[in-house]
This record gives sequence, C-alpha cells and structure tokens, in this order.
Amino acid sequence: MTASEIRALFAVASRPEVVSLAGGMPYLAALPLDSLARDVHDLIAEQGQVALQYGSAQGIEALREQICEVMRLEGIQGHPDDIVCTVGSQSGLDLVTRVFCDPGDVILAESPSYVGALGTFASFQTEVVHVGMDDQGLQPEALRQAISAVRQQGKRIKFLYTIPNFQNPGGVTLAVSRRAEILEICRGADIMVLEDNPYGLLGFDGQAYPALRSMDADNVVYLGSFSKTFAPGLRVGWALAPHGVREKLTLAAESATLCPPAFNQMIISRYLAEHDWMGQIKTYRECYRERRDAMLSALDELMPAGCTWTRPDGGFYVWLTVPEGMDTKAMLPRAVTARVAFVPGTAFYGSPLGGEERHRQMRLSFCYPTPDRIREGVHRLSGVFEAELDLMQTFGTGGRSNTGGPQSPSPDLA
Amino acid sequence: MTASEIRALFAVASRPEVVSLAGGMPYLAALPLDSLARDVHDLIAEQGQVALQYGSAQGIEALREQICEVMRLEGIQGHPDDIVCTVGSQSGLDLVTRVFCDPGDVILAESPSYVGALGTFASFQTEVVHVGMDDQGLQPEALRQAISAVRQQGKRIKFLYTIPNFQNPGGVTLAVSRRAEILEICRGADIMVLEDNPYGLLGFDGQAYPALRSMDADNVVYLGSFSKTFAPGLRVGWALAPHGVREKLTLAAESATLCPPAFNQMIISRYLAEHDWMGQIKTYRECYRERRDAMLSALDELMPAGCTWTRPDGGFYVWLTVPEGMDTKAMLPRAVTARVAFVPGTAFYGSPLGGEERHRQMRLSFCYPTPDRIREGVHRLSGVFEAELDLMQTFGTGGRSNTGGPQSPSPDLA
Repeated sequence: MTASEIRALFAVASRPEVVSLAGGMPYLAALPLDSLARDVHDLIAEQGQVALQYGSAQGIEALREQICEVMRLEGIQGHPDDIVCTVGSQSGLDLVTRVFCDPGDVILAESPSYVGALGTFASFQTEVVHVGMDDQGLQPEALRQAISAVRQQGKRIKFLYTIPNFQNPGGVTLAVSRRAEILEICRGADIMVLEDNPYGLLGFDGQAYPALRSMDADNVVYLGSFSKTFAPGLRVGWALAPHGVREKLTLAAESATLCPPAFNQMIISRYLAEHDWMGQIKTYRECYRERRDAMLSALDELMPAGCTWTRPDGGFYVWLTVPEGMDTKAMLPRAVTARVAFVPGTAFYGSPLGGEERHRQMRLSFCYPTPDRIREGVHRLSGVFEAELDLMQTFGTGGRSNTGGPQSPSPDLA
Repeated sequence: MTASEIRALFAVASRPEVVSLAGGMPYLAALPLDSLARDVHDLIAEQGQVALQYGSAQGIEALREQICEVMRLEGIQGHPDDIVCTVGSQSGLDLVTRVFCDPGDVILAESPSYVGALGTFASFQTEVVHVGMDDQGLQPEALRQAISAVRQQGKRIKFLYTIPNFQNPGGVTLAVSRRAEILEICRGADIMVLEDNPYGLLGFDGQAYPALRSMDADNVVYLGSFSKTFAPGLRVGWALAPHGVREKLTLAAESATLCPPAFNQMIISRYLAEHDWMGQIKTYRECYRERRDAMLSALDELMPAGCTWTRPDGGFYVWLTVPEGMDTKAMLPRAVTARVAFVPGTAFYGSPLGGEERHRQMRLSFCYPTPDRIREGVHRLSGVFEAELDLMQTFGTGGRSNTGGPQSPSPDLA
C-alpha cells in the first residue's frame, strides 16, 4: 500500500460505523472542558498581548519550571535552562534528528518502533537498525550485537531511540533491572540515548519507573509530551538535553518555527498551576485500564488459536501476532469492510531487513473507543481472522502484501 | 558577534528603557481581546474535543477554504486542497527547504533578505546567492546575471526566494511592471519561485499588488501568514503549492510536527468568520502608517549628512545606510548603551561574498514602539551616529566588526 492508499483507507476507517483500533488518539471526553474554557478566556482577556505575540524559541520559563516538577515524578532532576519546548514531541524527534544525523547514519531502535519516529528518521535519510525486544523490553545482548554488527559494516551509529515505558507499538516496558545495563552499553559505545516517554505516567497501577534520564544526565536526551497526559491538540512537548545539545536544539527550533505558540504553552502552564493535573492523569489511567481490560478479555475469549499478544501495564497499545501464513497488511482492507481498523505491523519497521514476522503483526489501540466498542471491534476482527483461516485451509495460503518500508506517519497513527 | 552575544545584547535591548527598533513584533494592542477571549472560551466549551485532539497534517478544511478568500485579495485563485497549514510561515520555509534542497544547492534571494529564512537555508547547508534590488525591488538583469554566474560554476539553483511586498528588511516593493519579467526569467531557467508574503495586505494606502502566484500557478510556491494581519503567537501560516509539491510538503509537515495545533487553526477560522478582519487589517495599516511617518520625519530631521534610507509604502521596516567608514554592527553595543536598538545589516546576508556596503546598513522597525518612542529612538540613534562621526574625524576611522554570515534567527528579529 502506498501512503495515499493508507490515507484513503483511514478515511473510510474514520467513519462512525467502523471501530478504529488504529488511532492513538487520547480519550478527551475525560477533560474538564468548562473550566478549561474559562482558563483560555482569562488568558486572552488578561494576558492576550503576551499570549498572541512572538515568544522565546526555547519556550516560556514558567512552563519549563513546571515541566521540571512533572519530570521529578519519574526521578529526573532537570534544570529549566536545559529544556526546549517543542511543537509536540514529534518536533523534538525532528529537531534531534536534524541536529545529529547525516544521510546514511544509523539509528538504533526497538523492533518494532513508533511509526512517526521512523518517518522522521527516513526523511533525514538515516538507516534504522532494529534491536530485539522481549516482554522485558529491549534486550541488552541484542543491543551489543547490533552495535557490533553495524560498526563492522563501517557505519556510524548516532543514537539509540527508545520508548522505555508502555512502548508504542509493542505495549511492553523496559525492565527496571535492565535500564542501567542498556545505559552502560550505550555510554561504553559512545552512543547517545534518545528517550521518548509520552506514556510514562499512564501506568495502570499508578506505578512510575525511573526514567533513563534519571540514571544518566550526560548521555540521554529526553523527550516529554503533554499529548497523552493532557491533550495533543495544543502540540506542546519538550526536550531535556545536556547543555551543549540544548543550545543546538534551540537554534534548530528557531530555524523550524521561530518559536512554539506562546498561547498554547500558557494554557498548559495555567492548567498545571490551577488544576488537579495529577488527578486528571489518574482519571485517564483508570479509563485506559478499563479499556485495556476490555481488549484483553475480548482477545482471550475470541481470538483463534495461534494468535499471541502483549499484555500492557500502561499506555495505549496491544501488539498482536497472527498465525503463520496470514498477512495483516493484506487483511486490512477486508477488516475495514468488516468495520474494524488496525495498523499493520510493517508500518513499525524502518528497515527492509529483518524477520518475516512483521507481516503477521498488528497494533491494536484501546485508548479511544469505549469498552463496548472495543469488544465489538475485537469480535469483528476475530471474524476476519476466522474467514482468513478458512481460506487458508481451503487454498493453502493467505494473501501476502508487498514488503514495505516505513509508511508515512499520520496523526491517526500517533 | 556570536549568536549568544546577540542574544545577550537583545536581552538588554528588551529592557523597557531601551527603544527597540530591532524587533518585528506586531502591535497587538490594536486587537479586540475581549471578544477574542469569548471566542476561545466558546471553542473549548463547544468543540473542545476536536480543538484539543490530533488533527489533519494538512490543516483543517474550513480554514483552508477561508485562506482562499484571503488570498483572493491579492489576485490568487487557489484551491483549498493545495494549501498546507503550517506552524507560522517560518515552518513553511523550513518544509520547502527540506523538500527541495540538498547540501550545496544554491538559493537565490534578494540582497538583503529575511534573517529567519537565511537561518533556515543555512541549517540545510545550502548556499545563498544574493540578487541586487533597487527602489523597484529585485532587478531582472541582476537575476539573469546571477543565474548565469551560478550555473557557470556548475552549481544547482533550487529556487528564488523573494518577499515582493514591503520587503523585510529592505522596505521596498517589487514593481508590478517587473513581476511578469521576474517570473518569466525563472520559468525559462526552470527555477521555482518561493514567494513569501506576510506583509502584502499592510500597504499604507490600502493598495494590494497582484501576488506572483496570481500570475503563475505552476512555478510558484506561495507562503502566507496570519502573524502580521492578526497575531503571531498562534503560529498559523500556510503554503499554497502546485499539487505534487503540496503532497510532499504535507508529508514533510507530518514528519516535523504530525499536525499543526487544531485549536489555533480553529481560533483563526472563527475570527475570520465572525470578526471584521478586513477592518482589523485597516486598523493595523493606519497604526503602522502613523509610525512609518513618525520614523521617516524623525530620520529626515535628525540623521547626519551621508545617511540614506528607504521610504516604505507598507510593512514594518526602514533600511538605513550610514556614511562610509562607519560600521553598524560595531556600533550596536554603543547604541544599546544609549538605549536604542536596531539590527545590523550583516544579519540579512547569507553569503560572505558581496559588497562591503552591508557593514554600513541596518534595519529599523517601526511596528512596535509608539510614534513618540520612535522619534525618541531615532534621536538617540542620531546621537550615536554623531559621536561616531566625531571619532572618525578625530582618529580617521570607526571600528570594524568581523564579517559575519547569517546570524541565528530570533523571534525578536522576525
């Protein structure tokens, strides 16, 4: 499928009769919209000439101070001077890649990895080398081997890109016991770590894991976001970086947008100051835990033999593998016809190398539909699988789609 | 001066006792903040789940339709499908450069040109070749010569970057009689035109010139912005591009930020639908005309012999040249000590080649300070000039700063 075919398919998938298990859209009905409306009113009425004016490329200082408070929940001792506010953390990914990478450079990433990051990495003509995960996250031995193999080919590794908590799309979390080892391997090999942590505060048991950045302030660039803990539409994220890197990111940010929108940062700053934002995160957690439970119990009940999936403790996603011979990308149009959508596994790989397994994988999101709709979606999906398995038993094999590189990221896949 | 020295200097220059003729900040006191406050309230209360959610990478359709109406004022017949909403038009510059340019490619630009564009062009390791202007704007013959000279060196020209109306920093407008010729030269040489038009509706006599895009739909990528006609803090601009280019820009925009903030676009869309936005632009025009008049009459009255300057019919800027032997960059710290700030001419050149004249130039902005403050600022500036001329008469020459490439763009220089 080409980017435009995917776009057309997702246009169909966005119809209300389709249960979309594809998108990564937070469930914003949980937000206190009435009091937010009063906040934005007051911001414009009282501080409109600042909110609507050009601002600092690095971001407003009050918000950068509050971001330090937020990060402390995951053990990070950061300084507001070392923070650059970005237009969503996607922009952080873009700026870091722009600053560090030349065409042909290698970026290490989990296998599979976030489609939006892969799109950005591809746009700078870098090469992504995937590193294996298990249910404890990134495997240290696989990381060592990947570094060694890439260097034997004479290629330059610029950084390890990792989503340690409730990974997108894998739904797994890097075991705390592995974190120091992963950091040590990277430090020893002189490879920077780019830690992307949009879901860290969305652990369903209220657990927070120590950020990689909390264990290594010198070799980690940390990306944070308010998209999942508050709302994505304001596009406010941040990068916390060692001093020299932060300077470069600020210059790159000026070049990209002059400055992030001041109004949006002020909305978040006021929200953090005046609302029970921790309580809101708890509300989100409970909402997503209920949906995770709905998805897992429906999968347990309905999936045909031979399917396997991850059991996330937080975040938005389940990663599902179908039996051999089936191809998730080839099945997507049939699924949409059956009024259920998912993202095929191939979207989450940035290199054409690697296992055939990706054709049997898919990401299922439980963040947006209600529990009932999730159950209905899994039910429809199981019908598609059963029909496919019947075909395979009759004709010997399912359809196989073309091998694809990273598809273009799309907000629906965020 | 390094980027950080400039930053430090502008930190001092932003103190209230300094008259800043440096920044390009619109005068937002003219905005109807109370009714805007009610609008943003209602948007969140009534459509918060859309406004705060991920949106389309291309931008919301209603706004793209309204943008077509806005562009019609300058003769452009565009289609909403060919518009990409951007995070300010700075982001449009960034995306176009990213899509078209490889390191070493040449971009043609007016001499002098917008500092923010030069910063972006430099960040993609392109080479800027400046093309001479006179008081009628870009000179067709100089353009022909530049194309020929660059190609003789075996270099590849990717596009002509031009600000045809009330140019930043030159304050001059490309004569309507020259527009077809400039377009024809570029088309004939297979060079795309990147038209940057933030000030087009700010002509002091209410005049609007036909956009280059209105005369050539196939070879012009047009950048528009609400930063100067409404407010910059929302960071909403747009690119209008031929179909194939628009597809590429959308993909690049997804890679850069996933999507521009939906809320910000909805604010602008509602503002255009429900406010007298043409009346607001008229208010801005009158405000800036009064300030332009204040600056020109103060310059006429106070500048020492040998100084020359442009007489803009719109926009924000006057471009001033001081007598031979003086150096504006070297004078800036002294000017700030005398409580007046400007941007030295060297900031507006992207290539180290070219005339020595740039050291004698500076940009003076009249958009932000009140007429009284503008007169006071020019008065202080004339004191600095007189002192410098005295020194020169006594010791033979003024100080000369190092030749600089483009300085980092800064919101204060927008």
